Amino acid sequence: MQTQVSEFIAQMQKLRETVNSHLSSTKRMSKNTTNTIDQTKLMDKIVSLAKRRGFVYQSSEIYGGLNGCWDYGPLGVEMLNNLKQQWWKNMTYRENVEGIDAAILMHPRVWEASGHVENFTDPMVDCKQCKARYRLDVLFDDLSIKRKKEALRELVPGKCEGQVKDNVVEEEFAKLIATDQQSAQVAKVLACPHCGNKGTFTDARKFNLMFKTFVGPVEDSSAVVYLRPETAQGIFVNFLNVQSASRQKVPFGIAQIGKAFRNEINTKNFLFRTREFEQMEMQFFVKPGTDDEWFEYWRAERLKWFHELGMTKEKLQWHQHPKDKLAHYAKDAYDIEYQFPFGWGEIEGIHNRTDYDLSRHEEYSGKSMKYFDEQSKEKFTPYVIETSAGASRSFMAFLVDAYREEEAPTAEGGVETRVVLRLHPKLAPTKVAIFPLVNRDGMPEIARKLEEELRPLLRVFYDDSGAVGRRYRRQDEAGTPYCVTIDSQTLQDQTVTIRDRDSMQQDRVALAQVKSYVLERLM
Amino acid sequence: MQTQVSEFIAQMQKLRETVNSHLSSTKRMSKNTTNTIDQTKLMDKIVSLAKRRGFVYQSSEIYGGLNGCWDYGPLGVEMLNNLKQQWWKNMTYRENVEGIDAAILMHPRVWEASGHVENFTDPMVDCKQCKARYRLDVLFDDLSIKRKKEALRELVPGKCEGQVKDNVVEEEFAKLIATDQQSAQVAKVLACPHCGNKGTFTDARKFNLMFKTFVGPVEDSSAVVYLRPETAQGIFVNFLNVQSASRQKVPFGIAQIGKAFRNEINTKNFLFRTREFEQMEMQFFVKPGTDDEWFEYWRAERLKWFHELGMTKEKLQWHQHPKDKLAHYAKDAYDIEYQFPFGWGEIEGIHNRTDYDLSRHEEYSGKSMKYFDEQSKEKFTPYVIETSAGASRSFMAFLVDAYREEEAPTAEGGVETRVVLRLHPKLAPTKVAIFPLVNRDGMPEIARKLEEELRPLLRVFYDDSGAVGRRYRRQDEAGTPYCVTIDSQTLQDQTVTIRDRDSMQQDRVALAQVKSYVLERLM
Repeated sequence: MQTQVSEFIAQMQKLRETVNSHLSSTKRMSKNTTNTIDQTKLMDKIVSLAKRRGFVYQSSEIYGGLNGCWDYGPLGVEMLNNLKQQWWKNMTYRENVEGIDAAILMHPRVWEASGHVENFTDPMVDCKQCKARYRLDVLFDDLSIKRKKEALRELVPGKCEGQVKDNVVEEEFAKLIATDQQSAQVAKVLACPHCGNKGTFTDARKFNLMFKTFVGPVEDSSAVVYLRPETAQGIFVNFLNVQSASRQKVPFGIAQIGKAFRNEINTKNFLFRTREFEQMEMQFFVKPGTDDEWFEYWRAERLKWFHELGMTKEKLQWHQHPKDKLAHYAKDAYDIEYQFPFGWGEIEGIHNRTDYDLSRHEEYSGKSMKYFDEQSKEKFTPYVIETSAGASRSFMAFLVDAYREEEAPTAEGGVETRVVLRLHPKLAPTKVAIFPLVNRDGMPEIARKLEEELRPLLRVFYDDSGAVGRRYRRQDEAGTPYCVTIDSQTLQDQTVTIRDRDSMQQDRVALAQVKSYVLERLM
Repeated sequence: MQTQVSEFIAQMQKLRETVNSHLSSTKRMSKNTTNTIDQTKLMDKIVSLAKRRGFVYQSSEIYGGLNGCWDYGPLGVEMLNNLKQQWWKNMTYRENVEGIDAAILMHPRVWEASGHVENFTDPMVDCKQCKARYRLDVLFDDLSIKRKKEALRELVPGKCEGQVKDNVVEEEFAKLIATDQQSAQVAKVLACPHCGNKGTFTDARKFNLMFKTFVGPVEDSSAVVYLRPETAQGIFVNFLNVQSASRQKVPFGIAQIGKAFRNEINTKNFLFRTREFEQMEMQFFVKPGTDDEWFEYWRAERLKWFHELGMTKEKLQWHQHPKDKLAHYAKDAYDIEYQFPFGWGEIEGIHNRTDYDLSRHEEYSGKSMKYFDEQSKEKFTPYVIETSAGASRSFMAFLVDAYREEEAPTAEGGVETRVVLRLHPKLAPTKVAIFPLVNRDGMPEIARKLEEELRPLLRVFYDDSGAVGRRYRRQDEAGTPYCVTIDSQTLQDQTVTIRDRDSMQQDRVALAQVKSYVLERLM
C-alpha cells in the first residue's frame, strides 16, 4: 500500500511537470489590450467566410435572425461532429470513464439543489416612470464618463471636484459599485437612458438566467421546468445509476456532450456568448484527499487535447480563478483561455467542485449519494473534478486558429493571396476532393470510380468545374486536407496527384493506393 | 434528353419493385389485437434490462422522475450514437445530400409560417366548478361504457334504450364525438371525474403542444419563443443558404439530427411517446412533377436502411395515410411501422410535403424561396420529399427487435436461459470484451496489451472477474458481438479465442490478427 502511494505521488509529480511544459510562456494579458484593427477585421472575415462557405449561419436568418442562436451549415456540422467525436473518443474510450446522454428538461428540484434557482442570476432594475428594464452592470458599463462623474459628486462629495483624471473617476466609480448595496444606491441617482427621468429606478432585482417553460397544460408555478443551463447536473443525478450499471469503482468519470441554454441579456462575439450552446463535460469522482492530484492530471490531459488537435500553443493560456472569486462550490478552478481576435476567452474550465453537488442532491432528494468502497470498507461522498469544455467555443477557437491568408503561386507564374483553413485533418469537414483535370478523355469515369470507393468511408467532394487552381483555392478555404487530381498521366500509368493543403506539395500516388494514403493520415 | 427521361423512368420502375420486395407480406394489423400477456411482459423486461445494464434511465430519477423524459446511460448513449452515425453516413455521404445542425430555439414567425401556432393543438376543457383540466379526447377515452350510455341517452334519445350491446354503444358514441361541435356538446352532459359535478365543463379550447419560453428579461408575448416541435423547419429556412454555399443543384437534400420537444399530455410506452426526443430528418428538394418518383426512391432507401441494420423484416410494415386524413401540407404519406410489444407504431414517416413549407416561408418572411434552374432557365418553388425518422423510437425498435431469451449450454453440461441482444455489430455499444481466463500466469498482461491496442479504435470492455461463462452472459445481455479470451494456450502459441455472440462459436485466432478480425466485421 505504502509503495502504491509513493508511486502515485511520483506519477503525479511527473504530471505536474507535463502541465508546466504545456503551459505557454505568455503571461496573462489584459482583455483590453489585444484588440488591434487587423484583429477586428479578422473576426469579420471569419464570420463572412463562415456564412459564405456554409460553416455557420445566423439562426432563422430569413426572419431577421434570433439573437444569440446560430445554425451550423454543411461544412460546420461536419467540423462540429468531428470535434465532438474526437472529444468523445479521447474522454470515454478509457477504462475509467463512462458516457451518458441526459435529457435537457430535468426535474425542477435539480436546479434548487444545484443552487441555480437561487444564484444563477443577473441584477436588473426597472424605471418606474417608463418601465424600461436594464441589467445593472450593463447600465453602469454604458455610462459616459460625464455621468459617472456626476454620480460620484452626488454620492461621495469631495471625490470629483475640479479637474479629475478620467481613470481616477473610473476607479472611484468601480469602487462605488463594488457591493450590491452601493449599486442600488448608485442606480437611484442616475437618469434613465430611455425616458431621461432621474431617481426613477427600482431597487435591483435578481434576474434568473435559466429559460423556463411549463410542462403539461397549466401554466402555473407547479408546472415550471427549466432548460438546463449546464449538462453537469445530468451527470450528478445519474451518478449511482451509472456506477452500478457499469460496475465502475471510484475513481471514475462520467462524460456527456449536449446542448445547454442561458437567457443571456448581452450575447456577443459570434459563437462566444450565445443563448443556446453545446457543452462537452466530464465529472470525475474521486476519494476526498486525492482530489488535488486528479485535478492536476485532468488539467494536463485537457490542455494536451487542444495541442494534439493542432491549436497554436502560444494562443492558449491558463487562468486560475482568484481564491476570493471562486464559485460557491469550488475549491480550485482553472480556465483554458484562447486568444481570440477580441481578446482572451475561456474555452474550457477545470474545476474542483468538491462534494458540493452530490451532497446537495442527497439533501434535496433524500437519496443517499454516497459511495461504498469495498476494498477499504469506507463510505464517503466523492469529490468531483470537472472538465467543462464549450463545443461551440472550441469550434470557434479551432476555426479562428486555422484561418490564414498566405501568398501562393498562380499557374501563370505570378503570386496571389490564398485563404486557407489549416484545420487538423481529423477536424476538417471534407477529407478529400476529387478533380478530373478535364471533363473528357475518360478522366471523369476514373474520378467517379475513386469517388465511389471513398464515399462510404469519408466525406468526399467532387469538383469538375473551372481551372484546377481555382478548385484548389475553394478547397483551401474549406480546409480540405487532400486534393486528388486525375490527369492525362493517370490514363497512361494509373497514378494520380495528391496535393497537400498546407505544403501545397503534390505526391504522385498509384490510384489503388489513394484510399490507404488518406486513411492512414486520418487515423 | 428523351433518352434520359426514359432511363429515369426505367430506374424508377426498378425502384418500385425493390420497394415491393422489401414490403413485408403481413397485412396491416389492428393496433389492439397484438397485445398478449407475453408481449406485455417483454416490454417490462426490456425496460428493466435497460435500467440495470445502463441503456436508459428515467430522467431525474432521484427526484421521482420527470414524466416523458429519459436519460441514456453508458451503453445507451453508445448505441444511440452508433445509430445516429449510421444514419448520418447513409444519408449525407452522398453527392446530393448536405447536413446541417440548426438551433432548437428559432424565430417565432417560423412556427406561424409552418402552421404550428395555429394547428399543432389538442382540445382541452376545464371544469368551471373545481378547475380541473382535461384533454377532451382523453376524457372520452377514459369514460366507462356506463357513462357513455348515459351520455347517449341524454343526447340522442332512443339510441340506447334497453339492452344494447357494448360495441354498438362504442360505435354510436364515436359517431357522436366525431366533429368538434358535437364533442363540446358531449362534454357538457358529462360529470367531471374530479369533483363529480355535471354540466360544468367549458367549451373546448385548443391547447398548443409547443413548449414556450421567453427570450430576454421581460416575460410578455413579444418575448415568446418555442422549443422546436420538429427539426424540419430548421432545414426549410436554411434552404437557400445551404444551396448557395454547397453549390448543389435541385434535386438535392438537406439532412439533420437533433432534439425536438412536444408538450404531450399523455406520454406513454417507454421511449415511444415522450416530451423530449430526437429526430433524424432529411428534406429532399425536387422539381415539381418529379416528386412522385423521388417519393418512391426514398421509400425504398429508408426501408432498406432498417433491413441492412438487421431489423426483422416481418416486423416492419408500411402504413399509407388515407387521403382524407393527410396533413394539410401533404400530397402523400407513408409510415414505416414496427411491431412493438404494444402494437404497431410509427418509427419513420416519408412524406410528400409539396411546396407548402417553402411557399409559406416565402409568404411570411417576404424573402424569395424560389430556385433558379440554370439549365432550363426556369424559376420554381421546389417540392419536398421528407424522410422523418425518430432516433429515440428507432433506438427502442432496434432494442426490442434484438432482445432474445435462448437456451444455452452451461459449463457443467446443463442448459440455461441466456438473455442476448442480437444487435447489429455496427449498433452494438461495446464492440469487444477481453477476458483473461485466470488472473495470473501472464494472462492479464497479454489481455491488457490487447486492450491497449484496441481501445483507441473501439469501445472495449475488460473483465477479469468470475467464471468465463458468467462473463459471456454479461456481454450477451449488453449485445457485445465479440469476446476474446486469453487462456493457457495463448501463453504457448500466441492465439486467442474469439467467441461470436449469436452463434456462440469460438474461432481460434492469432493474437496479432484480433484487431483486423474485429475491424473487418465492423466496416
